Formats: sequence, structure tokens, C-alpha cells
Amino acid sequence: MTTVGILTGGGDCPGLNAVIRAVVRTGAKHGFDAIGIRDGWLGLVAGNVEPLTDYSVTGILPKGGTILGTSRTNPFKNEADVQRLRDNIRKFGIDAIVAIGGEDTLGVANKLSKMGIPVVGVPKTIDNDVGATDYTFGFDTAVSIVTEAIDRLHTTAESHHRVMVVEVMGRHAGWIATVAGIAGGADEILIPEIPFDLDEVTHHLRARYERGKKFSIVVVAEGAQPKGMAEAIAQSARTDEFGHVTLGGVGNFLRDELEKRLDMEVRVTVLGHIQRGGSPTAHDRVLATRFGVAAADLIRDEDFGKMVALRGDDIVAVPLEEAVANLKTVDMDLYKIASIFYGG
Amino acid sequence: MTTVGILTGGGDCPGLNAVIRAVVRTGAKHGFDAIGIRDGWLGLVAGNVEPLTDYSVTGILPKGGTILGTSRTNPFKNEADVQRLRDNIRKFGIDAIVAIGGEDTLGVANKLSKMGIPVVGVPKTIDNDVGATDYTFGFDTAVSIVTEAIDRLHTTAESHHRVMVVEVMGRHAGWIATVAGIAGGADEILIPEIPFDLDEVTHHLRARYERGKKFSIVVVAEGAQPKGMAEAIAQSARTDEFGHVTLGGVGNFLRDELEKRLDMEVRVTVLGHIQRGGSPTAHDRVLATRFGVAAADLIRDEDFGKMVALRGDDIVAVPLEEAVANLKTVDMDLYKIASIFYGG
Amino acid sequence: MTTVGILTGGGDCPGLNAVIRAVVRTGAKHGFDAIGIRDGWLGLVAGNVEPLTDYSVTGILPKGGTILGTSRTNPFKNEADVQRLRDNIRKFGIDAIVAIGGEDTLGVANKLSKMGIPVVGVPKTIDNDVGATDYTFGFDTAVSIVTEAIDRLHTTAESHHRVMVVEVMGRHAGWIATVAGIAGGADEILIPEIPFDLDEVTHHLRARYERGKKFSIVVVAEGAQPKGMAEAIAQSARTDEFGHVTLGGVGNFLRDELEKRLDMEVRVTVLGHIQRGGSPTAHDRVLATRFGVAAADLIRDEDFGKMVALRGDDIVAVPLEEAVANLKTVDMDLYKIASIFYGG
Amino acid sequence: MTTVGILTGGGDCPGLNAVIRAVVRTGAKHGFDAIGIRDGWLGLVAGNVEPLTDYSVTGILPKGGTILGTSRTNPFKNEADVQRLRDNIRKFGIDAIVAIGGEDTLGVANKLSKMGIPVVGVPKTIDNDVGATDYTFGFDTAVSIVTEAIDRLHTTAESHHRVMVVEVMGRHAGWIATVAGIAGGADEILIPEIPFDLDEVTHHLRARYERGKKFSIVVVAEGAQPKGMAEAIAQSARTDEFGHVTLGGVGNFLRDELEKRLDMEVRVTVLGHIQRGGSPTAHDRVLATRFGVAAADLIRDEDFGKMVALRGDDIVAVPLEEAVANLKTVDMDLYKIASIFYGG
Repeated sequence: MTTVGILTGGGDCPGLNAVIRAVVRTGAKHGFDAIGIRDGWLGLVAGNVEPLTDYSVTGILPKGGTILGTSRTNPFKNEADVQRLRDNIRKFGIDAIVAIGGEDTLGVANKLSKMGIPVVGVPKTIDNDVGATDYTFGFDTAVSIVTEAIDRLHTTAESHHRVMVVEVMGRHAGWIATVAGIAGGADEILIPEIPFDLDEVTHHLRARYERGKKFSIVVVAEGAQPKGMAEAIAQSARTDEFGHVTLGGVGNFLRDELEKRLDMEVRVTVLGHIQRGGSPTAHDRVLATRFGVAAADLIRDEDFGKMVALRGDDIVAVPLEEAVANLKTVDMDLYKIASIFYGG
Repeated sequence: MTTVGILTGGGDCPGLNAVIRAVVRTGAKHGFDAIGIRDGWLGLVAGNVEPLTDYSVTGILPKGGTILGTSRTNPFKNEADVQRLRDNIRKFGIDAIVAIGGEDTLGVANKLSKMGIPVVGVPKTIDNDVGATDYTFGFDTAVSIVTEAIDRLHTTAESHHRVMVVEVMGRHAGWIATVAGIAGGADEILIPEIPFDLDEVTHHLRARYERGKKFSIVVVAEGAQPKGMAEAIAQSARTDEFGHVTLGGVGNFLRDELEKRLDMEVRVTVLGHIQRGGSPTAHDRVLATRFGVAAADLIRDEDFGKMVALRGDDIVAVPLEEAVANLKTVDMDLYKIASIFYGG
Repeated sequence: MTTVGILTGGGDCPGLNAVIRAVVRTGAKHGFDAIGIRDGWLGLVAGNVEPLTDYSVTGILPKGGTILGTSRTNPFKNEADVQRLRDNIRKFGIDAIVAIGGEDTLGVANKLSKMGIPVVGVPKTIDNDVGATDYTFGFDTAVSIVTEAIDRLHTTAESHHRVMVVEVMGRHAGWIATVAGIAGGADEILIPEIPFDLDEVTHHLRARYERGKKFSIVVVAEGAQPKGMAEAIAQSARTDEFGHVTLGGVGNFLRDELEKRLDMEVRVTVLGHIQRGGSPTAHDRVLATRFGVAAADLIRDEDFGKMVALRGDDIVAVPLEEAVANLKTVDMDLYKIASIFYGG
Repeated sequence: MTTVGILTGGGDCPGLNAVIRAVVRTGAKHGFDAIGIRDGWLGLVAGNVEPLTDYSVTGILPKGGTILGTSRTNPFKNEADVQRLRDNIRKFGIDAIVAIGGEDTLGVANKLSKMGIPVVGVPKTIDNDVGATDYTFGFDTAVSIVTEAIDRLHTTAESHHRVMVVEVMGRHAGWIATVAGIAGGADEILIPEIPFDLDEVTHHLRARYERGKKFSIVVVAEGAQPKGMAEAIAQSARTDEFGHVTLGGVGNFLRDELEKRLDMEVRVTVLGHIQRGGSPTAHDRVLATRFGVAAADLIRDEDFGKMVALRGDDIVAVPLEEAVANLKTVDMDLYKIASIFYGG
């Protein structure tokens, strides 16, 4: 009997439970037992585990978050922790580990793999910025939530003839801003990939106003920066443990600067944590399920040191190493589509 | 032929379009023509009006915002404006006005009424703090949006073992916080009516943690204040033109203070403008429609100087004067219900 | 220590779990233990019970359905069952029962109460047709679901210039049809209270078409009947165990008859079970919670043989007898409001 | 100045308006004028057209249906109609046509293209069964609606220990059933591609019951058929103008047959037209926008006789001929994933 340990690490993300369920259920078909490791790598260091049965995963498919809990613990910061982790793997009879997480979590997985521990990875990045996979679960849900928020803000913007600035997730890459901005009909989208020029933004919004469109929606990724003014933002920014600017660094900056430059009311909304919570979209549930099934299959095939990934519409396995190799920035052809609609 | 002018003033609110539609359609049955006045009282000062036909109001029932636009203009700040307003009423042949708005808009309506201008009012208060009516449209929608956000934050709070602070609308009264807090299963609800004691809040959250509930949701109205520490908040607060604290004054304060006192991660989400945008709930569409029908009936009956209001399940007419008379604070029996579930 | 047994009977309804949670939590404050009785009265006959702890009710507030299961079992159909039920009450040390259900469930509660068993009732009627209470939980959720469906059907109706018939719940009373019809902007609402005249309906829809509105939405309660043609429907109708016409009796009838009379495509949608499933609205969660708190308070006060009810905005206690006394039909003032918008 | 005529044909679908908007806005950048053709090819036969300006397409991105109306008119059924169509193309100075539709609409486009009329196509198939493109807009929205319905039905199924049968769209291919079934955690998915064996289905559901899962969800595509029993269904089926079985042919059949075979209550819900109405998901808005942009680019490049298509994550152009060539049935690897969860 093969015993598979499952853990989730890093920021939570809609679809984690769907992956866990798929690994457990597919594993059962393959004859595996499953053990849930609490709070990411921390649980393996601390020996905090629990059996995962069919019953444990019943009804969790539509649930946001992770039933296993999560943390950002990196056992390699402390040699004793690595030893505890190895001891616990032996103690609990864990034959293989499915690690579900982002760069950091999979980075640890990669190191453990090189030490000979059988690991497979499942990529998680709500920002969609991991290079090894075209998309991951959670991104579609985040885009849906942001798009719904933009729809709501439209009615207020239009009624009050205002500029509404919406700050969304995306520290290093502007995927959520770009896709939700197109879906929501944004009049300007600002992303980390392209430092923005305040005068140009002002010019666009003013031109739109003069064409009779008395309101505008500006979607800005939290990591977007004005040309040569990054410090201006940094001063008012707050960051959380992920390094995320949480409360409107660039959003507040834009509000203040645009209000100075335009003779219009400007308001800012910082969507924050609601972007990563709640029930996953159908699209994300299916993708997460496919990832979980594929991860269990990799274990059956003893094809360790790999992570599952989406390429086109196919699930493939790639070396864990690739998970952390490249930041995937926004496709510029897609970004240009947004600008067709500016001022419209 | 009676010509009815319709305007919306103050902050936008889901259901305004449903009122406009109901006044126009019911008015048509009564043989009225309708004129839309743009941007609240400003449109009557500036002569910015347009005919409102059956076609104008087709399809607007489910739409958020107001097709007429809105502003906070008070013509009584400038005597010449009052004269322009009266001239325009004559110029456009307006026989009666339906003014849809909050305290300020209805305050102007009341003054005009005393000057002999035929006006009826429809109360709008997303915060639910106007004394003359039990409820108004927009409140149920705001509560729904906040409840959905709390549901989303629950999964993150639970996965990360965090305290999540959610700042919601409610400057003078904590209705949204109380009702959405009960609906979302909040573990602490803080409202303007009762200055909160930080030590007590900390005690509750710690007790809950020690009972094995490793996460908590705190819902706080933007106008809530710590006992004897109002100034601490004021320093970091920002206010918009409505005097609303827009970006997390008390929310940020709580995050900082709770994180100091508890050995837990604390995160804050400021819901902001998404609370007042988007399609009204079924409940609000029906209430807004009933208000609009009743307003048109008041005009038919030449029963001016009144505003429509909800009492129990009945629509009644009350003097416009009452609209601004009393702030309606949260029912303490309802608020106490929330506390039954604290620590649960 | 008082031990309270809780059961849910009859058709499921959003908000049942919120009631259960509120009884358990409020009961805990009053020093009660709680026992969950499975599947309505059946569980008390069969001795199928389980402890209900704080843990049992954690996270159930936003969940649809009932964690206790439900059935339509009536123990009074069989004398031996009544005896078993009484034996089980003694066996499990149940001091008082909270029965959550509709006419049938509360009818049994009433009989047991007269036999000296301490019972309190919580009314459940998704159709809103129980006379003793103004509203109950579940109704607002059903109305929301129907309204969203009407919104969706509008775009199809308009694109295809069709008449869309929507059949909704409401066997004896047309509350859902009326309220959701007003909220969705229906062009005709047909309810059980008023037998409809096919020629009149046809006339309305044709008049609307001739005014340039090339599509219409007709909302029909499942229990609505054409004047003098009830049998025509009965032939094609199917009924479920609640006597509900489940698959488009009157809906199909209307589709066929309207298509004969109008030169338009007519389509029918039967919303069916999705109207009673899923997460309750914020409004229903609060009402259900208030009911549950009040039921626990009645037990604390040993005020048995009562059921909780909503009157205006107050929760009151009324004799269980009243629960089954009167069918509450649609308020005709409300129904007339709908007709203002016909043909518009 | 190039004048582009735009039309939508066949059944309506969320995202049509997003395509129209994208063609108009991108066309404006290319220097095109746009003309809206009403009700598919019918409008070109009847000369029912209107200018499409920037204003016409403002605010339509999130709207379901099509602002141009639609029909199933095939001008090639009548030679005089083809002549009228050609005359109207000349009369209105139409230089190129964007035809948005399914097999039939694009079949006409293909014939016209061969006659020398400059046409480009945009594929529309809510069932996702057109071979030339991996996915089209509308499919993700339909899947979302079905998944939400399954979520709702879960709570009822569980509370009542029932089998719930959900009949969804999919006459020739079971894409919606498969994807939404996986997303909703269905316990059995039946599709047109694989005739089902009633005994096997019964066996699965009974086995699940015996493992303690007292309820099941069965998702069935409207075109699914029992082995050797197609006629049994046909007798009770109704079809609409698209040949769609609209009211529960196979759904009712399954309900009746499963209830005979199992000692459980079985209920059926036929989702019908709500699957194709309402606001498109963010995913569909983006895909529809990309299609519209690409169609306008094809016209700029005078690359006629093509249709846009999605391959992997790329938009490509393929000959119009391909649009009607192949039915795309469900990927069997995906379908097998569903069965991993059966009985779970």
C-alpha cells in the first residue's frame, strides 16, 4: 500500500480543495492511502498530519480555501527542521508527497526531490505568473470576481461622472488586470510590465471625457509603477507577508495624482483579499481536478520530481525545476487588445 | 396634462432606476408626462433636462446607478441658483417634482415645498439610517454584497488561521455591519452606536482561538470608534465628498492594534464603492418599484410636501420634514443577537 | 440540564441550517444540550438521533438544505409509531422539541403538544402561504433565484422576439410569481388566486407587440389555472410527493395555447427544484437566525405549544394551532402593482 | 471608407454583443463604418439595417443576447431571397459582412463567399460542437450556469436522500454535461456520444447508496440515449425550432426508469433556456472580444472566406468551409476523468 502525503502551501487560492479531492479519489482507485499534512511544510516539520479519507473530501469541491490549512514555512531555513521533516516522513510511512503551491512551496519540493524524497508538484499561482504552465486554477475565479466588481463600479462611475480606480492583485505580472480589464471594459489598464506615464493616462481620460464619455474605469495591478516615480508609491504602500502591497499603494497614488490633473472626482477601490476567496468557478474546478488526477497518476507511474502543468488544453508533466525558473509576464498581443477600446 | 420632473440626488444606490421607471410608468397611467432632470438639483439650476418616455425606462429595472445622473448640488447655497431653479420649473412647464435622495436632497425638497413648489420625496439611504422609513431600497443589496464578501473571506481566514477585518459602510449607524455580520456569521461586529473597547475585542478573539477556532471575522462599520481613541483613527482616515471615510480609517487602525495584541496575522479589507453598485436584489427592486408607484399616486392626489416611506410592510406618506428629523440607529435587540454567536 | 431535540420536516428550504445553528448556539447560552433528530418525525419514530455540538453547526450558516435530513413522515398515521416516538423521547432524555417545518410538520407538533409533549415550532414555507407569519426564510432566496432566471430569459426573449413562459413554485398561492414577476419586470403574472382568461392574456401580449415590444415574459405559478379549463392542465400535469406540479403542467399548457393564438414563438421554462436549493440570501439567513434564537428563548421560558412568527419587523410567538389554520394568499394591492407595468 | 455589415444568426448566446462591440470598435480604428443587419440573414433579405455607432455599442459588453436580433432564416431556400440579399448589399453599400453564427449561419456565409461576396465568419456554438475551433464564447457561461444549478440541487438531493436528474443542453455532443458534471461533482454523466446502459447506471447509483452516500446527481445531455431504446424517449420528447429536445425527453425517461429500478425518490430538473441567457462570464467576454477584433482584422487584410477560431490559446483564421465540416464530440480523456469520481 502506497501512502501519499498531501500539503498546500503559500497563499490560499480557489481550487485547492478540488486538487486535494482529486488526488485522494484518484489515489483510492490506484490503491493509495492518503495523509493530509497541515499548514504546508510546517505540518511535516511539526508532525501535524491526519488521515484523508473519502469522507474527508466529500463536499469540498465547491469550497474555497484549503481544508489542510496553509503556511509560508520554509524548512530549509533551519537544518533541524529538514531533519524533523525527514523523520516525520519515515514516522508516518509517507511514500510520496503531493505539494500544491507556488514558487516557494515548489522550490522546497524541488530541493527535497533532489535529496531523494519522492515528490510531485501542483502549481498554484492566482496571479498566473508561473512560467511553466499556461494557466492555473484560481486565476479564472479571481478574474471573475474583479470583473463583477468592475461591472458594479461602472454604474457608480457613470451616475457620478467619476473616474474609478480599481487596484487588483498582480505584483510582478498584470494578468488579472489585463484579462479582467478587457472583460469589464476598462478604459485604461496599468500593469507592472510597462511603467505608466501619468501624463499619457491623463490625456486618454481627458480625451474620453471630451468625446462625451463622462466617466472612466482605470484598472491597475498592485505592482504597476509610474515611470521614474516608484519611490512615490513606496512611501505610502503597505505590504503583507507575501510582499503584496495590500492597501492601495498605487491605487491611492493614482487617485491623488489623477484628481490633481483632471477636473473630475476620482475614487479608488482596493479589492484585496476577496479576490482569492470563495467558491471556484466551474473552469477552475475542472482545471484543479485535472491537475489532481494527473498528480496521482504521476505517483502511480513513480514519475517523481515533476510538476503537472497546462499547455494549450493538455495536462503535461514538467521538471519541478521549471516551476521557479521563469516569471510569465502578460502576453503583449492580449494587452494591446485592451487599448483598442480605450476612449471608446 | 401634468408634467412631472424627476431627479436623483446624493450618492448612487441600487434601485434608483427602478423608482424612476415606476414613476414614469405609473405616471403614464395617470396621464402624466415625465421630464428627467440631470444630476440632481444641479440639472434644475442649469436647465439640463430631457423627456422621459416609455422607451427611456425600458430595460432599466435591473440596472444599478441612475440613468439621470446625480450630484450633491444644493441650490440654497446661492440665491441666484434658487431663482434659476424656479425659472426653469416654469420654463419647462414642470407641474410637480419627484425628488429621490437622502437627507440633503430631501432637505432641499422640503424647502422648495414650503416655497409652494409641488414636490414629493422618495427616501434613499443605503446606510438605512433615515428615521422616517423602516427600510429603503439599496440596503438589502449592500447587505448582500457584504455578506458574499464575508463568505469569501471566511475561506481565506480559515486556511491561514487569520483574523480578517472587513470595513463596511455606515458612518453614523451600523445597520450594514450588523445585518451582514449576522448573515455572514461574523465573530465580532463593531458599530458607531457603541464605542468599542479594544481590550474586550482582543479578549473575545483570543478566547475563540483558545476554544480551537483558529480564525475570526471582524466586521466594522466605517464610523465605529474605539473608546476614547477617536483621534487615533482620524489621523489616518481619508474622507470623500460625502464625509465617508473611504480607505480604511478604522479598518487599518484595527488591523494594526489587533496584530499588536494578538499573536495572529490580521488582514483588513475595505469594501468601499462596490457596496453601492450593480444590479439591485429582487427585494430592492420591489421596494423601489412600490415607492415609485406611491410617489406617482401622491402627485395624482395632489398630496404634496410628503415623502413615501415603508412602515412594517406598508407604504405610507409622511411629511417631508420627517425625512431629515431623526437618525435611525441600530435596533439593539438585533445587535444583541449577533453576540450570541461570538466565540462560537 | 435541558436536552433539546431539533428536527426538520417537509420540503427542504434555504435557511434550515441557519435555524438549527441558532437553536444550538442560543441553547448553549441557556445551558441546553442539543440532539439532532434525523429526517423529521421519522427519526424520532426510528430512534435515529445524534448529538448536536458547537462543532456540528460550525460553517453551516451559508449552506442550503438541512444537515439533519428531512422526510414527510407523519407518525399519526400509525398508532404504534406514536408510541415509538414517545418512547424515544424518554429514551434519549429529550425535554423539549424544536420542530421546523410547514403545515404537516407543525400539525404533528401541535398534536404532540396537546398530548403534553413540550414542543415549539418554527414555520417553513418557501411558497410564503402560511397565514400565521408575514414571511418565512427561503422565500426571499426563491424569489432571488427566479428573478435572476427572468433576467436571463429576457435577453433570449428579446433577441428572438419570443414570448417566454416561466413556471415557478406556488401551488395554492402566487407569492413567488408576484414578487419575482415585479422584480423581473414580467409582462404578465398568473397566480392561483385568480383564474386567468386566455383571451385576455393573448390580448395583452398582442397589444404589447403592436406597441413595438416584440417580446414578452409571462410568469406563471404552478397552481394557476385558466378559467373553466382546469382539466385541460390536469391531463398533462405530473405531481411529486408534495402534490407539486413538477414538470410544466400549466407552463406547457400556456405555451401550446399562446402559440396557437399569437403569431409568435413561445417557449417555456420550468424552474423546478433549483428554486429551493443553494445558499440562502443574507435576508433569509438573518430571518432564520432570528427564528432560531426566538425558539430557544421560548424553551428557556417554558412557553410551549407556540410557534415563532414574523409580524411586521418583530418576532412574536403564536399558538401552534394557527400555523395550519389559514392559507395566506397574495396581497391584491401588491398584485395590482404588477399590472401597471403590463404592456410597458 | 469601408462599410462593414454585421449580423447574428441562430440561437442566442452570451457573448454575441461582445463580438459586435469588438468589430465596431476595431473597425473604427481601421477606418470602417458599421451597419447592423437585423435578425440574421433575414435583415439582409428584407433590407432591415441600421447604423452601428460607437454609441450603439456602449454598455453592451456585459449584456446577454444580441442587440441585432437573430433568426434562423436561410436565404438559399428561395432564389428570390438571394437576389434581394445581393440587391440590399449593393443598396446599403456594404463592402464586407461579418456573420456571427453556428453551422447554418456560417453555411450561408460560405455559399455567399463562393459567389464572390466578401464575408468573414465568427463561430457561435453554445454546445461547443463545432470542429473548427477548440472553444467558442457562450460555452463557459452555460457551464457556469449548469454548475451553479448542480450546486443548488446538491443540497436538496442530500437533504431528501434523492437522486436528482439534471437535463442540460447538448443534442449531438455532451460537452456541457461533461464539463459542468465534473465541476459540479456529478455522480453519473450521460452524453450523446455513448449510449447508456440503464442497468449499469442503476448499478452505480445503488452501489453508491450502499456505500453510505444516500443521494446522487445524474447529469444528462438532452441528446443522450439509452442503448436500444431511443424510441422510448422520442415518444415523449418535444423539440423546438432548433431541433432541441426542450422539455425533458431523456430527463423524464430517466426519472421514470430509475424510480422503477431504485428504491429511492428520483426528481428531474430541465434547465432549458436559462443556460443560454444572461451576462457572459469574464472568460466568454474576453474570447468574444478577441474573435471580434480578429474578424475586423481579417476584413482590413481583405482575407475573406475565412472564419476566426481558437486553437490552444491562439486566435487563427480557417476556411469557412471547415466551420460545417466536423462535429466535435467530447474528448474521451476528459470524460473518463468524471468516472473517477463516480460512487465517491
